[in-house]
Amino acid sequence: MSEEKAAAEQLPPAEMARRCAEAMWRDDHASQALGMRIEDIGPRYASLSMTIRRDMLNGHASCHGGLIFALADSAFAFACNWSNRLTVASSGTIEFLAPGREGDVLTATAQERSRAGRTGVYDATVCNQAGDLVALFRGRSYTVPGELIPGVELTEN
Amino acid sequence: MSEEKAAAEQLPPAEMARRCAEAMWRDDHASQALGMRIEDIGPRYASLSMTIRRDMLNGHASCHGGLIFALADSAFAFACNWSNRLTVASSGTIEFLAPGREGDVLTATAQERSRAGRTGVYDATVCNQAGDLVALFRGRSYTVPGELIPGVELTEN
Amino acid sequence: MSEEKAAAEQLPPAEMARRCAEAMWRDDHASQALGMRIEDIGPRYASLSMTIRRDMLNGHASCHGGLIFALADSAFAFACNWSNRLTVASSGTIEFLAPGREGDVLTATAQERSRAGRTGVYDATVCNQAGDLVALFRGRSYTVPGELIPGVELTEN
Amino acid sequence: MSEEKAAAEQLPPAEMARRCAEAMWRDDHASQALGMRIEDIGPRYASLSMTIRRDMLNGHASCHGGLIFALADSAFAFACNWSNRLTVASSGTIEFLAPGREGDVLTATAQERSRAGRTGVYDATVCNQAGDLVALFRGRSYTVPGELIPGVELTEN
Repeated sequence: MSEEKAAAEQLPPAEMARRCAEAMWRDDHASQALGMRIEDIGPRYASLSMTIRRDMLNGHASCHGGLIFALADSAFAFACNWSNRLTVASSGTIEFLAPGREGDVLTATAQERSRAGRTGVYDATVCNQAGDLVALFRGRSYTVPGELIPGVELTEN
Repeated sequence: MSEEKAAAEQLPPAEMARRCAEAMWRDDHASQALGMRIEDIGPRYASLSMTIRRDMLNGHASCHGGLIFALADSAFAFACNWSNRLTVASSGTIEFLAPGREGDVLTATAQERSRAGRTGVYDATVCNQAGDLVALFRGRSYTVPGELIPGVELTEN
Repeated sequence: MSEEKAAAEQLPPAEMARRCAEAMWRDDHASQALGMRIEDIGPRYASLSMTIRRDMLNGHASCHGGLIFALADSAFAFACNWSNRLTVASSGTIEFLAPGREGDVLTATAQERSRAGRTGVYDATVCNQAGDLVALFRGRSYTVPGELIPGVELTEN
Repeated sequence: MSEEKAAAEQLPPAEMARRCAEAMWRDDHASQALGMRIEDIGPRYASLSMTIRRDMLNGHASCHGGLIFALADSAFAFACNWSNRLTVASSGTIEFLAPGREGDVLTATAQERSRAGRTGVYDATVCNQAGDLVALFRGRSYTVPGELIPGVELTEN
């Protein structure tokens, strides 16, 4: 059993966050199909961007709120899964502050606010290329059994 | 002025809701691109469905939360724009209760809970084809100046 | 061990809900100090009322939003602790739809919408004596180890 | 009419925030009855404290969530009414992160995140005397016609 333990690959936090993001991204067909890009990743935070395409506009000619939510939700997902403990969203709240227009580049930056036991709270801002605040997001996470990358764990310190 | 008034087309509520939905749908590239379908529409409510495609899955192999939100948000948008008064989402909250799997058919049904002055509250449920509750959504609406269909108004009674 | 098991008092659902409410109420100094009254209680739901006193008014001469929240939160607490599994609120959202005035009698009715594993979602409405909707509340619950009444369990069936 | 205009008292932002807080506080029976204290006040923010009394405990021997909400909601109210434009809460969301115990001194600090037209978004943190985060609050505001202090306006600049 101690041998099994020794076999586990140990990663420092920044490397762990990067590896978990890679593992999640590979299978994240939705974020890929929406043209999202990972801009920055690290322990407890993530930043993703998305260009608003024509097929993302709603009946009011602005970006569909669900797709702004999706960008923030993806940033949240990368931020809360950074340590290889499988974590899902249990709920999310978004405030729509300004419309997104076709061609705008939105960037969502998510940051951990609290984590205790199996639950966590993460905040994200969504800004456009001019730095205007487009939306505020708050997500609640729930950690379930399982790993993103089997046999990899955080460096003990 | 009374002549101008006389020129406005008057529609009963059910017809008005149908016409507003048609007008919104025509330009709602996002809902169309996500394969949504309007299942039912009427005064203060709307029901939309969406089949979960492979390109809607997230890194945990379940439907991306943003796309479940998008379906509920679209139903909310159709429900709160039924009377030809231009109305946008100011915020939304979603509870994720069960995962959506590839091939599942989700149906979001939104209903007005409150409307006073320029603000409203709408609830939506999202269920899968087995009738299981997948998500609960609550949206807050804000009515802005403008109409969806110029010159059309509700029948007075 | 089977003897220990036999020693546990078994209660049917309605009786269990009543007994848990009694146990919680005894120590619920806050709900008592705010003059709340349990109007109805049962499995997965609870209804509580509160008369708006002068010392509950805010600087706008209407009932302080925190006290409307408190009434809904108490109804939620009784609804989610009905089965003798210790359960706390992890978050709550309230929509303020109409003001409460001094002397108004508010009634909050909370109902379970979902419960799976350790988490649950509960909705509550808050109405005044005229039946007007004053607020909509949604609470998220989290079940922790522990019982309200030691050694009491639900009748198996 | 220009004379009337000339008669209006003009106040710089910090002074305006202080005067509006005084005016609101005078009639805020609820915040007073809960023993709240204004710790800091200024344009777009407010900080209030409250000591958890025995009559604030719930059936789990921790501070009733409604009273933690009330503290954050009061801080939010002072933050969003700073400029003498009558503003009410349209909704609020709170995350309960750690329990409050009898004797704890909670401090809620609210800050404007967004304000456009008649609506605003405010965030508040609630911490205890050790600096531990007890709750996160987000409130949505709605500005209605009216002033807190008749005939007083912000210095033009």
